[in-house]
Amino acid sequence: MRKKKLSQQIVQQSADQIQMLAANIDDQSAESVAPVIELLMDAGALDAFFTPIQMKKNRPATQLTVMCHPADQQKMTYLMLKHTSTVGVRYQIWQRTVMPRDFITVTTEYGDVRVKVVTYQDIQKYSPEFADCLAIAKAQNLALNQVYIAVYQQLK
Amino acid sequence: MRKKKLSQQIVQQSADQIQMLAANIDDQSAESVAPVIELLMDAGALDAFFTPIQMKKNRPATQLTVMCHPADQQKMTYLMLKHTSTVGVRYQIWQRTVMPRDFITVTTEYGDVRVKVVTYQDIQKYSPEFADCLAIAKAQNLALNQVYIAVYQQLK
Amino acid sequence: MRKKKLSQQIVQQSADQIQMLAANIDDQSAESVAPVIELLMDAGALDAFFTPIQMKKNRPATQLTVMCHPADQQKMTYLMLKHTSTVGVRYQIWQRTVMPRDFITVTTEYGDVRVKVVTYQDIQKYSPEFADCLAIAKAQNLALNQVYIAVYQQLK
Amino acid sequence: MRKKKLSQQIVQQSADQIQMLAANIDDQSAESVAPVIELLMDAGALDAFFTPIQMKKNRPATQLTVMCHPADQQKMTYLMLKHTSTVGVRYQIWQRTVMPRDFITVTTEYGDVRVKVVTYQDIQKYSPEFADCLAIAKAQNLALNQVYIAVYQQLK
Amino acid sequence: MRKKKLSQQIVQQSADQIQMLAANIDDQSAESVAPVIELLMDAGALDAFFTPIQMKKNRPATQLTVMCHPADQQKMTYLMLKHTSTVGVRYQIWQRTVMPRDFITVTTEYGDVRVKVVTYQDIQKYSPEFADCLAIAKAQNLALNQVYIAVYQQLK
Amino acid sequence: MRKKKLSQQIVQQSADQIQMLAANIDDQSAESVAPVIELLMDAGALDAFFTPIQMKKNRPATQLTVMCHPADQQKMTYLMLKHTSTVGVRYQIWQRTVMPRDFITVTTEYGDVRVKVVTYQDIQKYSPEFADCLAIAKAQNLALNQVYIAVYQQLK
Ligand code: NI
Ligand code: NI
Ligand code: NI
Ligand code: NI
Ligand code: NI
Ligand code: NI
Ligand code: NI
Ligand code: NI
Ligand code: NI
Ligand code: NI
Ligand code: NI
Ligand code: NI
Repeated sequence: MRKKKLSQQIVQQSADQIQMLAANIDDQSAESVAPVIELLMDAGALDAFFTPIQMKKNRPATQLTVMCHPADQQKMTYLMLKHTSTVGVRYQIWQRTVMPRDFITVTTEYGDVRVKVVTYQDIQKYSPEFADCLAIAKAQNLALNQVYIAVYQQLK
Repeated sequence: MRKKKLSQQIVQQSADQIQMLAANIDDQSAESVAPVIELLMDAGALDAFFTPIQMKKNRPATQLTVMCHPADQQKMTYLMLKHTSTVGVRYQIWQRTVMPRDFITVTTEYGDVRVKVVTYQDIQKYSPEFADCLAIAKAQNLALNQVYIAVYQQLK
Repeated sequence: MRKKKLSQQIVQQSADQIQMLAANIDDQSAESVAPVIELLMDAGALDAFFTPIQMKKNRPATQLTVMCHPADQQKMTYLMLKHTSTVGVRYQIWQRTVMPRDFITVTTEYGDVRVKVVTYQDIQKYSPEFADCLAIAKAQNLALNQVYIAVYQQLK
Repeated sequence: MRKKKLSQQIVQQSADQIQMLAANIDDQSAESVAPVIELLMDAGALDAFFTPIQMKKNRPATQLTVMCHPADQQKMTYLMLKHTSTVGVRYQIWQRTVMPRDFITVTTEYGDVRVKVVTYQDIQKYSPEFADCLAIAKAQNLALNQVYIAVYQQLK
Repeated sequence: MRKKKLSQQIVQQSADQIQMLAANIDDQSAESVAPVIELLMDAGALDAFFTPIQMKKNRPATQLTVMCHPADQQKMTYLMLKHTSTVGVRYQIWQRTVMPRDFITVTTEYGDVRVKVVTYQDIQKYSPEFADCLAIAKAQNLALNQVYIAVYQQLK
Repeated sequence: MRKKKLSQQIVQQSADQIQMLAANIDDQSAESVAPVIELLMDAGALDAFFTPIQMKKNRPATQLTVMCHPADQQKMTYLMLKHTSTVGVRYQIWQRTVMPRDFITVTTEYGDVRVKVVTYQDIQKYSPEFADCLAIAKAQNLALNQVYIAVYQQLK
């Protein structure tokens, strides 16, 4: 079973370490490598993304990068090796500055939306929860942006 | 056998039509689609290139675009369908403004290099022939840029 | 309700016209523009994809391109204007060469998989149905590639 | 002298034609091709942008695309040929659906901001004028997003 | 006030350390993230650039990477957190080999241009100062490349 | 003289270190930077690739990344400084998980093809040697994919 999504957890520390992992993919089709992003996120990756790269012999290839907690390095490596064509995964620890976060709920004309509140020194940012906004937009046939504006209007 | 390369031919007209052809590739690996550029160029394409695109279902895919003389549309379509995984090729005629071109030869400290001279209204541009410069750089273990500078120094 | 997916339909003609539509997006976030691909595909687009572009003032922007039947031009335009921040949609008809297609079903050690068979002159290509392979891979915890290889082994 | 910026003009028609022009750049450095975007915009281009492409012989090249009024085709071609290394410019007319636009001014805690209001059928979108928001953000040392949120809060 | 531009300083050491910082941006528009590059450069970054990436849920996102002196790590982090939507910045020290550099001034038919001269072992490279060439090109309505060629012709 | 290609060697260890090196290129043309990939691979790089990046002042630039054995760091740095316009190379050691590999030869209707067999825990992957498949495809005028399918059909 899948844990509560990280983006919905309260985080209080402002520094940690993250594990970066990467592999270059040149012998697998786009459609077969695509599902690996969701597989990795479901297994606890903090982020997973593709970068277009141009390899030797004019190959229009793809770099797969994964970020996770250091404790998950072996699990992510296993999934990358199993679900992509790569034969090697490079990895390294990076430091990270994180904005501590909290959540508030705002009530709009379209319904309730959670808003992530992140702070760092004198910086304060509000980020409406994407999943909430999308659910409302779909259910009420609205453009996503209409929902975001409705949320911003309730922030004081 | 392969014709004299287009970039080495004298061209005098200043307008023509070109055939654009394109296909999106999402079910073929980078290493297997890569050789198609050279295949198409060898068959007379004026240009052939890849653009990184992001398709449905998070696929890190590739668009293949080919430019050729309108008379070569069927030949290029055949090669695209044979050597890539696509099941369809879209195409259309575009107009083109072309700078008439001529060639001069300049003698540098490293050897002779052909230089393409192109003109349009009051514009005149000099373009050292890449293949000549590369051959000299490799033979004499020079950086390519040293050869280009040597050529520019001979342009009056 | 959603129609049978186009990729699963038998197609017999070898030429048609497609409507290309495009817009450049520079004032909408990645997370808010992302769902539009699926919205457009669900509404009958033949393809919809993003291309990374670099606009004026150093903006790391995105081009949205949509391909559809000419009869769907107005519907697609409406969805693009509603769900993205663009204020204009450019469009044009392109010609298209299409490989007529048929389907066969192959039985592998992991289960049945439909295979698209496309032909054009002397070219014949087999394309295992992605959705079938993915469903099997997920259900049996296999790498996608294992399923594809199993399918290829049954093609004669 | 430079005309009033297009993005600040009221537009009432909902359809027009635009001229697309394009060229592939492989023999000019990034720093020397970069200023051409601003040159083209200053000369009246409606949009001008770069797309990363991968050309023959493994060249990490750039496509330059320009959109303008059809009447400006020759002027844009001249600038592209003068300020880039390309020897040819391809071009074609595309149709365009445009959302008619009007402007309102909203007063925020940080100052006045013009907001573009665009409509099409039942769609209505508000787009705060980027230049106004940027000027305020710089003058008052704010994050741009704070200014946008302040504008959204005044829209009703 | 802004310091003398780094590219115009004489550098004598051939090795140092640089601080890499990066963040993925998926909930901020292209037009609002664009100005951050100049903000970071003005604050002393050695380099700052965007890379197109493809994140989860089909998001056409952007990676922001910053390079600076290790002593500037906190200042750059603050600016990245303030002016982008990211909630975390990853960072790490890399080693760097640098070519010691000096400057000469060459006099061309169009005016004076500084040229950076960099050396490493037996390698020597000349790099005309971009800002000087651009200023001349604009003032005298020349293509940038004409100015560069004029400079190369004066390098003995 | 050039060593046996790495991809054809048997590898037995499952972890090692690799040297990452990178440089941003903004003052060199695509055609002049392109040959550096092959130069680096010929000198023993494990991988070398370009990533499209967007630098300050709207430059559509290119990042060059090289991976090599740590012992080759100085040799690679020299080649990057000699053959590109960059004045600095950043570098760092990363860890790597590698799948031990062995080779088998399969006999297809078109000829013999070596197949790389890589393993890690319970993962086993087969990768037909690209060079062998390409040589057969060219000699017998086949699409590459036909050769790959023929190889897969012989894997039990
Ligand atoms: Ni390979
Ligand atoms: Ni965790
Ligand atoms: Ni498919
Ligand atoms: Ni021809
Ligand atoms: Ni805008
Ligand atoms: Ni249809
Ligand atoms: Ni060239
Ligand atoms: Ni106009
Ligand atoms: Ni988000
Ligand atoms: Ni400094
Ligand atoms: Ni420079
Ligand atoms: Ni080695």
